[in-house]
Amino acid sequence: MIAVLAGGVGAARFLSGLLGAVDPAEVVAIVNVGDDVELHGLHISPDLDTVMYTLAGAINPDTGWGLRDETWHAMDTLAQYGGPAWFRLGDRDIGTHLYRTGRLRDGAPLSTITSELCAAWKLGCRVTPVTDDRVPTMVTIDDDGADMEVGFQDYFVGRQHDVTVRSLRFDGADAARPAPGVLDTLATASAIVIAPSNPLVSIAPVLAIPGVRDAVAARRDACVAVSPLVGGAALKGPADRLMREFGHDDSVVGVARLYADVADVLVIDDVDAALTDDVAGAGMRAVVTDTIMSSPEVSVALARTVLDAIH
Amino acid sequence: MIAVLAGGVGAARFLSGLLGAVDPAEVVAIVNVGDDVELHGLHISPDLDTVMYTLAGAINPDTGWGLRDETWHAMDTLAQYGGPAWFRLGDRDIGTHLYRTGRLRDGAPLSTITSELCAAWKLGCRVTPVTDDRVPTMVTIDDDGADMEVGFQDYFVGRQHDVTVRSLRFDGADAARPAPGVLDTLATASAIVIAPSNPLVSIAPVLAIPGVRDAVAARRDACVAVSPLVGGAALKGPADRLMREFGHDDSVVGVARLYADVADVLVIDDVDAALTDDVAGAGMRAVVTDTIMSSPEVSVALARTVLDAIH
Repeated sequence: MIAVLAGGVGAARFLSGLLGAVDPAEVVAIVNVGDDVELHGLHISPDLDTVMYTLAGAINPDTGWGLRDETWHAMDTLAQYGGPAWFRLGDRDIGTHLYRTGRLRDGAPLSTITSELCAAWKLGCRVTPVTDDRVPTMVTIDDDGADMEVGFQDYFVGRQHDVTVRSLRFDGADAARPAPGVLDTLATASAIVIAPSNPLVSIAPVLAIPGVRDAVAARRDACVAVSPLVGGAALKGPADRLMREFGHDDSVVGVARLYADVADVLVIDDVDAALTDDVAGAGMRAVVTDTIMSSPEVSVALARTVLDAIH
Repeated sequence: MIAVLAGGVGAARFLSGLLGAVDPAEVVAIVNVGDDVELHGLHISPDLDTVMYTLAGAINPDTGWGLRDETWHAMDTLAQYGGPAWFRLGDRDIGTHLYRTGRLRDGAPLSTITSELCAAWKLGCRVTPVTDDRVPTMVTIDDDGADMEVGFQDYFVGRQHDVTVRSLRFDGADAARPAPGVLDTLATASAIVIAPSNPLVSIAPVLAIPGVRDAVAARRDACVAVSPLVGGAALKGPADRLMREFGHDDSVVGVARLYADVADVLVIDDVDAALTDDVAGAGMRAVVTDTIMSSPEVSVALARTVLDAIH
């Protein structure tokens, strides 16, 4: 098995390439749920859905999230009422949230529900939340000089991550348990990949689930990370800004320092080739390749390079 | 003020006619919420929505419920997952449920939310749930010879009311309180109208809220009911069958016996003119007119006849 610790868009693209490189039945995506949010009574799991929709070939290619050929009638009605329509939910996408929420109300664990959803999309690989428990990422932001704690989506979508972040907290993580099979998968996988996701708000809440960081660290020799930073910038999202705000180097070297205790190899982009020695100095072996997944072919090639790095 | 005790489709059509007959600002619809249902995490108020959509001119004219020009993408997705799609929710309609559910989660009372929704639809009249409390109508049906209690929508939509009903229960009604203004409206209205709704599952749960039946009975001389049965049959729904199953006469006479303690007049259809004396024998004065609201003009004429009966 190949275990992939995953956030949203970047992880989904990487997984898509991986499924083109190996037998999909060998792949288990272990996905962040810190960005899950309850809105209008619906339980929404953005990272799980981005991974699922991408692997199903159903993702909206323009946005990288949501479903293609989507309509927005429910949101239009909600907006007509003056309701909170800042978190855009397409009509087809809402069907996913209706199913998930209904099953959660029935008492089904999120991991079971995710399996059901992925089966309906006929995914060849396994996708699981890292935990069935609620572990909402809470973000303390600078609100005109004062601390204000908001939910992750309020920060990420509502404020378009255009604010200063002072601290992050994975609420409930200390008491959370890994979802069934997660620790076993990490213990027995032939490779563990940390996908090119935000280290601080996508991968950290995965590693924060008790037992997960230790399970990955115990397999350090089989673990390779892909840097989400390319030339000091995130391709999407606030990873570079957050790295700076939290006092980390906003480069592959900063990423290497964060992952050195859990992963042996850091795959970095060609543009960062000159930092190979600095990555080594931070405790990780650098492998240099094209990491910008601009086409399915590049994604597949990246996945092959990642696997070759540890085999 | 004119207070109208209301269920769904029949009440909505009557109210529509009433708004053509009097100043809409004079009208208060007091609506059943016993058929409210929580599905997929969403709070759905079918009677409130049928009244609101009808008065907004937005009702689906083919079904009598839901919105016109509707799409069904969320339901299609839910069905793709094998989810419970028996209660059809259109995409635009879902926007209403998202707003309502979100506001309920914020702690807003259903009556406040209903006012907000109706304001957005620019309704000229007031619409209120009879109570802000949850009073789900529970239906004990015959399940192959055994009693089985199910929720109202499971009975009404899920089984298309094609089963024998043994008993009805308005869960929580004993402890419920009338919504703000309901008792005052009933006490001061110049007329109270019991709309042509199902006496047993639409009007009974309104009267079951503590204080409401007494408030209406205290105004018996100002109260007129419109029979939902015409020639012994319901125009829509299971009213006639339920009347029989509960031992009532499935005619305007049976309706008169149910309402004689709260209303002075029963408006019956021309086809039931021969039963005028029997209605009187049951304790109500009969007024005969065309009650089949096949056009807006008939609805307006019916409303005028109803008001004339007590003025």
